[in-house]
Amino acid sequence: MYQFTTPFQNPSGSPIRELFKYVNLPGMISFAGGYPASDLFDTQGLEAAAARAYQTPTRCLQYGPTDGLPELKRELLALMGRRGIACSNDELVITTGSQQGLDLLLRIFVATGDTVLTEQPAYPATLQAFNLAQARIVTVPVDDAGLDVAELSKLLDSGVMDAPKLLYTVPTFANPTGATLSRERRVALLELAVKYKFVIVEDDPYGDLRFAGERMPSIFELAADVEGSRGWVVHFSSLSKIVAPGLRVGWMVAPAEIARRCVVAKQTVDLCTTPWTQATAVEYLVDGALERHLPRIASKYGVKSQALCSELRLQFGDAIDFHEPEGGMFVWARIGGIDAATLLTCAIENKVMFVPGKAFFSDKVDPFALRLSFAAPGVDDIKEGVRRLKRAYDEARSVHELTVQS
Amino acid sequence: MYQFTTPFQNPSGSPIRELFKYVNLPGMISFAGGYPASDLFDTQGLEAAAARAYQTPTRCLQYGPTDGLPELKRELLALMGRRGIACSNDELVITTGSQQGLDLLLRIFVATGDTVLTEQPAYPATLQAFNLAQARIVTVPVDDAGLDVAELSKLLDSGVMDAPKLLYTVPTFANPTGATLSRERRVALLELAVKYKFVIVEDDPYGDLRFAGERMPSIFELAADVEGSRGWVVHFSSLSKIVAPGLRVGWMVAPAEIARRCVVAKQTVDLCTTPWTQATAVEYLVDGALERHLPRIASKYGVKSQALCSELRLQFGDAIDFHEPEGGMFVWARIGGIDAATLLTCAIENKVMFVPGKAFFSDKVDPFALRLSFAAPGVDDIKEGVRRLKRAYDEARSVHELTVQS
Repeated sequence: MYQFTTPFQNPSGSPIRELFKYVNLPGMISFAGGYPASDLFDTQGLEAAAARAYQTPTRCLQYGPTDGLPELKRELLALMGRRGIACSNDELVITTGSQQGLDLLLRIFVATGDTVLTEQPAYPATLQAFNLAQARIVTVPVDDAGLDVAELSKLLDSGVMDAPKLLYTVPTFANPTGATLSRERRVALLELAVKYKFVIVEDDPYGDLRFAGERMPSIFELAADVEGSRGWVVHFSSLSKIVAPGLRVGWMVAPAEIARRCVVAKQTVDLCTTPWTQATAVEYLVDGALERHLPRIASKYGVKSQALCSELRLQFGDAIDFHEPEGGMFVWARIGGIDAATLLTCAIENKVMFVPGKAFFSDKVDPFALRLSFAAPGVDDIKEGVRRLKRAYDEARSVHELTVQS
Repeated sequence: MYQFTTPFQNPSGSPIRELFKYVNLPGMISFAGGYPASDLFDTQGLEAAAARAYQTPTRCLQYGPTDGLPELKRELLALMGRRGIACSNDELVITTGSQQGLDLLLRIFVATGDTVLTEQPAYPATLQAFNLAQARIVTVPVDDAGLDVAELSKLLDSGVMDAPKLLYTVPTFANPTGATLSRERRVALLELAVKYKFVIVEDDPYGDLRFAGERMPSIFELAADVEGSRGWVVHFSSLSKIVAPGLRVGWMVAPAEIARRCVVAKQTVDLCTTPWTQATAVEYLVDGALERHLPRIASKYGVKSQALCSELRLQFGDAIDFHEPEGGMFVWARIGGIDAATLLTCAIENKVMFVPGKAFFSDKVDPFALRLSFAAPGVDDIKEGVRRLKRAYDEARSVHELTVQS
């Protein structure tokens, strides 16, 4: 009856959302979520910030500027400065989560059929955004040191595809792989962007959640070392993983002309990001609460990551392969001998969940991969969850072997 | 250097935004704003609602469902029921302002070059959204009884344009004209939608701000009387004008298949509308605060509208032509003998502002039209503002006559 322009084969959108119905089953231990840990929110600090913000009620309640509240932009420019990213006010746009940053960028850059690049496996909402934009998705493989930039170089040199408009990557503690792109590859990627004139979209929601290893400069920061590259990097960040997603406060740093066009697009998209939570974020940041609270989140995630990784090794031994992350929320693993979708069915029966890897692939699915998030469950639940996963694995294997034999 | 897909001729986007720089000049009286009156916000009621909402901090701080918090959907279904709109949970989507509703709808319905209809003059952000979608805009004139549906019928019958995908209208207390579509025209419009298979997008941010005249059923409500038409109406509403824009809480009521696709699109656009302000809205609505406070806003707007209209008649007499609105925030006027852009220049010198009509036209500009908003200024300022406007008018006329003579 209706003539839609966008074919949504999947009625619920993201394949991960279809798993939501199991998450709240009684006794379920979930490694499936991409949500930060609710029990690590700084509820008192945010309550106090909200109260201070509301001392100027009009700022909270009235429409705000489309590019963001000036006071929040000032705080975020300072925050970016502390992260090694120097930018000006007209290069910074506050967005309704960093998800909106990608959407705006696609609105101004990508027409139907345009080629876009991303890592594989990739964050599913990115693939979904590309599909909504009806872009042609070309993927580049990822290993333990992040995006395989040498492969990308070969792909670009080969001339087999149209010139890509942009490349999306989560270079630090990636979702789903947890991997961090090496410094050498960051520089090489910048050189490719200059040579082939595509925008690198660096999504960095997790960079502050480091619990091991050495600081890695962002791609945006390293652009200072690669001539001509600064105009080809757009950097996204967000308060969602380091403060709370419920603020819906993200931001982008982009060359001024790109930023300006994103602001014009945003006028028609949502007029402005929620002023009330922006004002609350201002007070939270001015107060220094982020710097006080953030190390607590990062260190707790470190403890949880270690619990997950050591229990996985203990229970699965050689049957599992994974790279221990240095930050973020995710472990990406391959389990031998059984595909992850089959394993998930048995896992849910054993009251444990994860996301099968296929959700993160747009093609060439690795059936043995899975994503485990350690952010939400407590340490005891993490260990019990892995034991249940092993039980599910043994059951799935024995059923599988029976099937193969019969 | 960059290859953008969207041509934004106007560097600041909406033409109205270019006027913002004058609004805060000392002593300026502005009829230019489209913002609701800040001094009528129920700041205490909202503070109390926010405090109650934060008794469940996780609901405020964590990600929420893409279609909206279930508790808020329940309250809004009840609110819509009180407005005569019966709909089900899967027909209701909470959006980041109703502006996002239009954006989502365009994302799923309108491809480059598709024909879309709107009234003329129209809300500029709608024209901007159509331009971002690269749609072909066809306009239908408006008179004191709203959209000229007979003209639309002729246009559709003539076959001179491609089949339109949708028609956008603000049928009640329109922005900019303040006009309300008559009941007969609403029914006729529904019949046309069924016959020509286009979606009527009924944007209703002002409907509750009635201060004179009789209740007018929404187009959505009247769809019950026109066979086959319910599937062709999407209804937008919002808390922006009746509570506060800073919540960024709007919603759409749409046939379930349209609603579902909008939710899938919204997953990639901003994941969810700010849960913290949604939770605050829940508490505000549950408490009955809207019903208590709303009549205060509407009656104050009535007093302001009357002050503006009587002073306009007193000062301008036959030199002005306008229709007194029965609700909303706007008076649309035509002033004889001087074009509105010239008048604005003199008006700013006299410390009074309005929006020249051309901002609301995509073609066939009426140079003598202007939009006056009575929402923000107080009654004394309104009267003084009109006196200044008359002074500006006299000055502009004398300069104009001198120019013509010389």
